[in-house]
Amino acid sequence: MSIMVLGTVALDTVKTPFGIRRHMLGGSAVHFAMSARLFADVNLVAIVGEDFPQRYIDFLKRKSLILTSLIRTTGKTFKWHGKYERDLNTALTLGTELGVLLSFKPAVSDKQKNIKHIFLANVDPDIQKHLLGHMRSPHLVGLDSMNYWMKHKRKALVQLLKRVDIYVANDAEARDLSQEHNLIKAARRLRSLGPRMVLIKKGEHGVILYSDKFIFSLPAYPTDKVVDPTGAGDTFAGAFMGYLTKVKRIDESSLKKAVVYGTIAASFNVEGFGLNKTSRLKIEDLEKRLCTFKRLVSF
Amino acid sequence: MSIMVLGTVALDTVKTPFGIRRHMLGGSAVHFAMSARLFADVNLVAIVGEDFPQRYIDFLKRKSLILTSLIRTTGKTFKWHGKYERDLNTALTLGTELGVLLSFKPAVSDKQKNIKHIFLANVDPDIQKHLLGHMRSPHLVGLDSMNYWMKHKRKALVQLLKRVDIYVANDAEARDLSQEHNLIKAARRLRSLGPRMVLIKKGEHGVILYSDKFIFSLPAYPTDKVVDPTGAGDTFAGAFMGYLTKVKRIDESSLKKAVVYGTIAASFNVEGFGLNKTSRLKIEDLEKRLCTFKRLVSF
Repeated sequence: MSIMVLGTVALDTVKTPFGIRRHMLGGSAVHFAMSARLFADVNLVAIVGEDFPQRYIDFLKRKSLILTSLIRTTGKTFKWHGKYERDLNTALTLGTELGVLLSFKPAVSDKQKNIKHIFLANVDPDIQKHLLGHMRSPHLVGLDSMNYWMKHKRKALVQLLKRVDIYVANDAEARDLSQEHNLIKAARRLRSLGPRMVLIKKGEHGVILYSDKFIFSLPAYPTDKVVDPTGAGDTFAGAFMGYLTKVKRIDESSLKKAVVYGTIAASFNVEGFGLNKTSRLKIEDLEKRLCTFKRLVSF
Repeated sequence: MSIMVLGTVALDTVKTPFGIRRHMLGGSAVHFAMSARLFADVNLVAIVGEDFPQRYIDFLKRKSLILTSLIRTTGKTFKWHGKYERDLNTALTLGTELGVLLSFKPAVSDKQKNIKHIFLANVDPDIQKHLLGHMRSPHLVGLDSMNYWMKHKRKALVQLLKRVDIYVANDAEARDLSQEHNLIKAARRLRSLGPRMVLIKKGEHGVILYSDKFIFSLPAYPTDKVVDPTGAGDTFAGAFMGYLTKVKRIDESSLKKAVVYGTIAASFNVEGFGLNKTSRLKIEDLEKRLCTFKRLVSF
């Protein structure tokens, strides 16, 4: 089964209490792909500049990602520079260079237009809409966004939510867009904007999945090895969407299992800088930690 | 089975976005007792002043609490005045009048000295120690404290932790006392100070139980009806300790079940001002919501 992810491919410079890494391969689409690939064939729809290292292209190929729609163009690759202090739950952005993202018009092949499972990771809502317009018969569309777009392109984002099955947000974003502080109220309000399901990621506090039929609440995998949480949300979404793509069902039991796989994948992501852990991840690693997790959360 | 709770009996004035209530019956021992009474005979060890309304005494008696060691003396009852704004997770203290608490020396009857299950709710660590010194053969001792004592009586508190089985703290307190931000590291560090188990309450984000043998993480009951969270932590502790007192076992399965009962009891507490909800609670209400909760958190 195939899944398509639209998002960023970035060069990340990240400082945490555990060290600093410069120009690591990162971005929403890459973090998503690194966990989604364990469940499905991942089609990456993104753009990079001429400064994007060939070794990163080779790396993405080795991870079996389908790069047909990864545009390489003149200009600079998108760069993010951030740091985390003692509270590793909160990123402080020190700098952003949009570069080639400014002129990004996603184009997909004729074959890719038939892909049914699509994730619109965090980019400009107009770009997300542009891609969605190309798709012939989407079955399951997930969308992530960020506060910046809620401020600057709120209308476009809200319009887009009508065409989405799952809206994925962190707690701050969910509160911002819904104007509700209580997360259950926030989820209900967001659902009324269109999506069948709302998934609220709370970082170290886990997630809430709010659907038209049920609520599911799950704590994060309790770990004391948080080194760099960058991309944890996208890693979560990758395993979540990947699992649903693989099982081809969207019922209560498969949705819950998808949330669990997302949680486990994210727990690996935070244990190393960038893609350090997730790029080496095997499905057996997920399964093994899932067993441990089950004991930690069931009664 | 009997349980003893040492703590405050207070007159609370609370303002939340849903209204204001003046001089409600509250305090750590009372909130604890209101859920613990569903599982065991609760012996209240506390002090009130001459301004304490007789109707509150009558109320506590109607709830079958054992008031042998509730001292009524000259002076003013302890009063707390606080408010919650949009973020109902965080209390802002507007005023505190310690009153009779300043001269509180708990005294218990000879019969009460044999009680095996004891909860030292939040009061001065010297008062907690004083009571514990009277007890003949405690089997299970729980302790709660607050940032104020960590600042002003840190040494006494740390000494006392050596004699305690379960230390109950909220996330801010756990971070403060352990000097660790990551809650798993914090729990491990706190355990090294003496208690066999550390229970970290994260408000709307649930709890983590860290024991020498296992970790258990549970989200809060997802509710959109948060009216007044005052006493939620004590209500949690009451059901948690009460359940363990009733089943007389402290193994993994009963500890997990105790955390679940604590979670459910706390979810009722926040739905009304003061004791509005918990004073009417029956064990059947807990059981019913527990069934709903199980579906919300299991996979």
